[in-house]
Amino acid sequence: MQVSFACSDQDGGRGGLRPPGNGGHSKQNATSPNTASKARARFRTVALIARSLGSFTNCYHHNLKESTAKLTGMKYRNLGKSGLRVSCLGLGLLSCAFQVAEQLMTMAYENGVNLFDTAEVYESLKTAETERGLNRKHIIEGLRSSLQRMQLEYVDVVFANRPDSNTPMEEIVRAMTHVINQGMSMYWGTSRWPAMEIMEAYSVARQFNLIPPVCEQAEYHFFQRDKVEIQLPELYHKIGKWRVGVVSWSPLACGLITGKYENGIPECSRASMKPYAWLKEKIVSEDGRKQQAKLKELTSISEKLGCTLPQLAIAWCLRNEGVSSVLLGTSNPIQLAENLRAIEVIPKMTAGIATEIDHVLGNRPHSKKDIHQAH
Amino acid sequence: MQVSFACSDQDGGRGGLRPPGNGGHSKQNATSPNTASKARARFRTVALIARSLGSFTNCYHHNLKESTAKLTGMKYRNLGKSGLRVSCLGLGLLSCAFQVAEQLMTMAYENGVNLFDTAEVYESLKTAETERGLNRKHIIEGLRSSLQRMQLEYVDVVFANRPDSNTPMEEIVRAMTHVINQGMSMYWGTSRWPAMEIMEAYSVARQFNLIPPVCEQAEYHFFQRDKVEIQLPELYHKIGKWRVGVVSWSPLACGLITGKYENGIPECSRASMKPYAWLKEKIVSEDGRKQQAKLKELTSISEKLGCTLPQLAIAWCLRNEGVSSVLLGTSNPIQLAENLRAIEVIPKMTAGIATEIDHVLGNRPHSKKDIHQAH
Amino acid sequence: MQVSFACSDQDGGRGGLRPPGNGGHSKQNATSPNTASKARARFRTVALIARSLGSFTNCYHHNLKESTAKLTGMKYRNLGKSGLRVSCLGLGLLSCAFQVAEQLMTMAYENGVNLFDTAEVYESLKTAETERGLNRKHIIEGLRSSLQRMQLEYVDVVFANRPDSNTPMEEIVRAMTHVINQGMSMYWGTSRWPAMEIMEAYSVARQFNLIPPVCEQAEYHFFQRDKVEIQLPELYHKIGKWRVGVVSWSPLACGLITGKYENGIPECSRASMKPYAWLKEKIVSEDGRKQQAKLKELTSISEKLGCTLPQLAIAWCLRNEGVSSVLLGTSNPIQLAENLRAIEVIPKMTAGIATEIDHVLGNRPHSKKDIHQAH
Amino acid sequence: MQVSFACSDQDGGRGGLRPPGNGGHSKQNATSPNTASKARARFRTVALIARSLGSFTNCYHHNLKESTAKLTGMKYRNLGKSGLRVSCLGLGLLSCAFQVAEQLMTMAYENGVNLFDTAEVYESLKTAETERGLNRKHIIEGLRSSLQRMQLEYVDVVFANRPDSNTPMEEIVRAMTHVINQGMSMYWGTSRWPAMEIMEAYSVARQFNLIPPVCEQAEYHFFQRDKVEIQLPELYHKIGKWRVGVVSWSPLACGLITGKYENGIPECSRASMKPYAWLKEKIVSEDGRKQQAKLKELTSISEKLGCTLPQLAIAWCLRNEGVSSVLLGTSNPIQLAENLRAIEVIPKMTAGIATEIDHVLGNRPHSKKDIHQAH
Repeated sequence: MQVSFACSDQDGGRGGLRPPGNGGHSKQNATSPNTASKARARFRTVALIARSLGSFTNCYHHNLKESTAKLTGMKYRNLGKSGLRVSCLGLGLLSCAFQVAEQLMTMAYENGVNLFDTAEVYESLKTAETERGLNRKHIIEGLRSSLQRMQLEYVDVVFANRPDSNTPMEEIVRAMTHVINQGMSMYWGTSRWPAMEIMEAYSVARQFNLIPPVCEQAEYHFFQRDKVEIQLPELYHKIGKWRVGVVSWSPLACGLITGKYENGIPECSRASMKPYAWLKEKIVSEDGRKQQAKLKELTSISEKLGCTLPQLAIAWCLRNEGVSSVLLGTSNPIQLAENLRAIEVIPKMTAGIATEIDHVLGNRPHSKKDIHQAH
Repeated sequence: MQVSFACSDQDGGRGGLRPPGNGGHSKQNATSPNTASKARARFRTVALIARSLGSFTNCYHHNLKESTAKLTGMKYRNLGKSGLRVSCLGLGLLSCAFQVAEQLMTMAYENGVNLFDTAEVYESLKTAETERGLNRKHIIEGLRSSLQRMQLEYVDVVFANRPDSNTPMEEIVRAMTHVINQGMSMYWGTSRWPAMEIMEAYSVARQFNLIPPVCEQAEYHFFQRDKVEIQLPELYHKIGKWRVGVVSWSPLACGLITGKYENGIPECSRASMKPYAWLKEKIVSEDGRKQQAKLKELTSISEKLGCTLPQLAIAWCLRNEGVSSVLLGTSNPIQLAENLRAIEVIPKMTAGIATEIDHVLGNRPHSKKDIHQAH
Repeated sequence: MQVSFACSDQDGGRGGLRPPGNGGHSKQNATSPNTASKARARFRTVALIARSLGSFTNCYHHNLKESTAKLTGMKYRNLGKSGLRVSCLGLGLLSCAFQVAEQLMTMAYENGVNLFDTAEVYESLKTAETERGLNRKHIIEGLRSSLQRMQLEYVDVVFANRPDSNTPMEEIVRAMTHVINQGMSMYWGTSRWPAMEIMEAYSVARQFNLIPPVCEQAEYHFFQRDKVEIQLPELYHKIGKWRVGVVSWSPLACGLITGKYENGIPECSRASMKPYAWLKEKIVSEDGRKQQAKLKELTSISEKLGCTLPQLAIAWCLRNEGVSSVLLGTSNPIQLAENLRAIEVIPKMTAGIATEIDHVLGNRPHSKKDIHQAH
Repeated sequence: MQVSFACSDQDGGRGGLRPPGNGGHSKQNATSPNTASKARARFRTVALIARSLGSFTNCYHHNLKESTAKLTGMKYRNLGKSGLRVSCLGLGLLSCAFQVAEQLMTMAYENGVNLFDTAEVYESLKTAETERGLNRKHIIEGLRSSLQRMQLEYVDVVFANRPDSNTPMEEIVRAMTHVINQGMSMYWGTSRWPAMEIMEAYSVARQFNLIPPVCEQAEYHFFQRDKVEIQLPELYHKIGKWRVGVVSWSPLACGLITGKYENGIPECSRASMKPYAWLKEKIVSEDGRKQQAKLKELTSISEKLGCTLPQLAIAWCLRNEGVSSVLLGTSNPIQLAENLRAIEVIPKMTAGIATEIDHVLGNRPHSKKDIHQAH
């Protein structure tokens, strides 16, 4: 699937996804998870920006870069360089039963999450979708039928998933601008695009006075740092005042960073399932065993900070100010509750701790600019 | 609340706010105040440009800068540099009971007022709203839900209230252009923006061929002159042929210029109420006492002209040709009737009188350009 | 009234003005005159571009500048520099009874006329309308309510009637572009605009990539030649490849060129009516008597060509290739039939005859370019 | 008729033309041919881009220029430089009975064809249509009424058929951009336009930031090579990165290249019918007899490759990578089946064979660039 998108809680309540309850505990209000789960049937990414709850601590801060909700402690950052404020933790729903999805969304929402990403990859669909690409017809029809399926008037962000070398960039950016002008989306972003293609999209947008993308969805965790820490910052530096923000996914490296593979592959773990044979292979490889060793070392740091390893991994992603939001990918309510508490670890993520982690990982990427980014 | 707006009497009567009666005295026609008052529940500024009554004295004047309605004597000026003609006195409704609002709007309308501003500031809402800012999502959703609440298809002017340093100017101007292109508004303006931000909005509009703002809402009275008399004129001078006009508010400085605080703070006055503690403080301060002394001096000038002090203050604002309209802020019908008669004082506001007032105030701002403005 | 417009026979028959019958003689089909006459209640100019009847003689002409309908002999030219083909004779309806309007429109339509102009000037409305001007609000609301009144989805051409010095040209051109982009009109034109203002509109359209006007409506007859023969051609020359065409009106100079005022002012003639006192004055003036003498001389030319004086006057207008269409202004069916036959006089309007007419008139305007225009 | 267009299978099934069955053999599902046949009543060209069936062999090819469907063997190329993938064989329906059209479309669809062109030329309509040209009114109204007739919301590509020298290019490109922005079409193309006019359309699109055309429909076969092999490639070369693709028609030169005229004109053949008198004349001319002789020689090549002469002719067109799709023009199901199998000949169309064919034809066009094109 090449077009994924973000949808939104519509203020006036006109046909939009409504959050599960009004900030209370009315779990019987299943409107939102219900319609959202329909969307998962086809689309990889569905993000829902709900109305944030309660009031904020530093409301009159003149240039508020990050604000914190009093009630939940959730922090909010701008989505890329757009003015849209999103919770620094988002929910990336994997395929799971409807009741579980509902429970996860409710829990996340009540903890101040306003960014939902119902990630689902159907390998069987991938083929046909890749073929269809990012041409104007596909972008417009794909988004329109998704809106119908989800019974939404518009989404907040539509993502162009993977670049399409068969479609001219002008056609992609014109189509994205078209769906925004038609009111089908508020913003558009890229997903898994190399920095060079993002640069081209930006240039084409400037050349033809079209709307540039506001953010890139990228994988980012202990063992995958180059793109988010070097390539994208260098891109932003070139573009100057304007820049693309990052929504990062897979903070726990598909479950690698949970400690559960420390002693091999347990039954019922994801890596033991057939479609994740590649994950199993990765874990039992030379590299995989080295990574498990490093995670063991990092566990002592997390224990020092009084948090779990996953919480450390998530807070570590958020130490990077270029990251607008980290999408949590768990389908386990208990793990989600644990992961959401990573918020509390952020203040403990000092420059010293970051250096300590870098020392263990031994993979800090180097460039002229990484000094400004990776502290 | 960061998005305020102006709404309009729609000519064809299709769902628009209708003026209270057809220029007659049919006070039972409460359509307009009724729908307008609904809007006050959430939005700070609601302005209604109604159809002006009667005919005009100088209709065939080739370059008519100011025209006068025969029946009411009301004068009309262009809203900023737009071609929209607004009454030089507008109604800025403060929070008051529905019946009072209706009475005020009817009285103003019958006196030729076609610009209504239902100003209302809810401190409790301010917080959350400030957080939301002027991002595309908020501008579009905010305006759309306001239109629904007021049952209007569109407004005349939507104001971006206070600048938002978290949202790129390009996003703001693109969103404003979008709502205009979508037919949700005719024009857009700024409110409480520093000259530098207005300049940036103008530049961005020119850079991307978007629609620039047509006017700024600014505080302007005897004791607050710099922005309207120096900063904005200098901005207009830089921008050249194109310029932003001013809709000014608080001509009586929140009631300071009524004479009622001459001998301290009376019970039941605004300054005696808890939320206006800052006003009380200001009045009883060293500066406040000096201002009251000056007002006493100005009273003798107003008596010489055969008008009241508030009427002098309002007419003084209107001597400035850069001011499109002065929003009257009273919630008292008797005071409104008094203020509306400021129209009759305008012809008496000669250069000599203006100099006399300047002498009393002793705060005439100086710059190379103020000679052209402040006569 | 400052916004006049042209409406159109809509191909699919969706709510558009339908021509009176399908090229047959079904006079009972009064749909078109009926709806059109409603429009006359408020708007000065209503032009209807109906589907031309029958086939054309030179259909495969590669660069067809003028084509002739086989059945009616009517000739078609492009409306200004647009690609729209209009009959070289149009119908400018004056205020007249509904039945007469219907009869006139039917006759004109059956003779191949596809451009209708229901001209009507209400002095009483003029005042208020002039005041309102060409601001964005007025252009959009004015056109929208006219469409509603006429029950049309869109018109072909909307005319901005008389320039408005109070509204910036950018606002006018943006609003006209807006109504075209919204599908409310196909083209826009100017009416009674000086060449300088048309030039400004064109420049502003180019500066902001907006849509320029396609034609100017101008008075043009034996005694009024300068604008159409000198000023507008000079403007077109400056603008280069792009140019504004002319739809001319008053080919008989408000009835002066009918011969009926040859011996003074007859009872029941227009000039004898009170609102046309200015016309009477003009006729009985020194200048007026000289004009009548010249018309007497021209009558001998028309007799030589075997046509009437009005036919000569109309064909003379059409000898000018810059004129897209001449709006006939009669409300008399017999006169209309006579005027429509001016088509047959065009081939006789040789350079020699034109020179003869120039000699009699003695008012041929001179400029470097008039040689190319006035033959 | 000057506006022809391509319509599309709409993904969500909302009022779009549906393919005849879901890739199965449900011939009773006549929805698509039924609605399509309605369109043929007026419009020359109707192309339908249906959803391609099955999966593709090289889905993960990074820069896939041509992909092949596993099930049908059909190959897909980008439509011009757009990102839209069309089958390299399209169906250009000639006027034929409804049942036949349905049978042809079903057969084509089941063989992987996703581009339909219901070509029909009504000589009687041609006249009036040519007169109407490509002005804004005609483009918009023509497309709108076609959509209504076909009960479609939009088409994929609207073609401007033959250039219109009476309409400024700016008006044409603005109107085409308008219908795309209004959602009535996804792309626009030209048909039978000289390279110079395509160049002008491209330049005007760039000058005013409008949408350029994506492809040209051109005649292309053994005896007509210059435009597709020399003129259009030279144009693309000038335009640089951006280029117009070709949809070619008449691969069998109106039936000339079928062998059926080898021994004169048989009864019941197209050339024996009255409206094709020009074809008959061509065949029996000196040139015609020479062409038949060459075809005899080419037959030996086709026999060598184990295919028929028409299959050779079609595969020969497709050897040209600049051709997006070859529209098959047959109304005979047996011939269609034969022509569709031209797909299998493509791999046999080696450089050697192409040279051999060039040698027989003796009409290989020469220019500096033809070396890169004609192999």
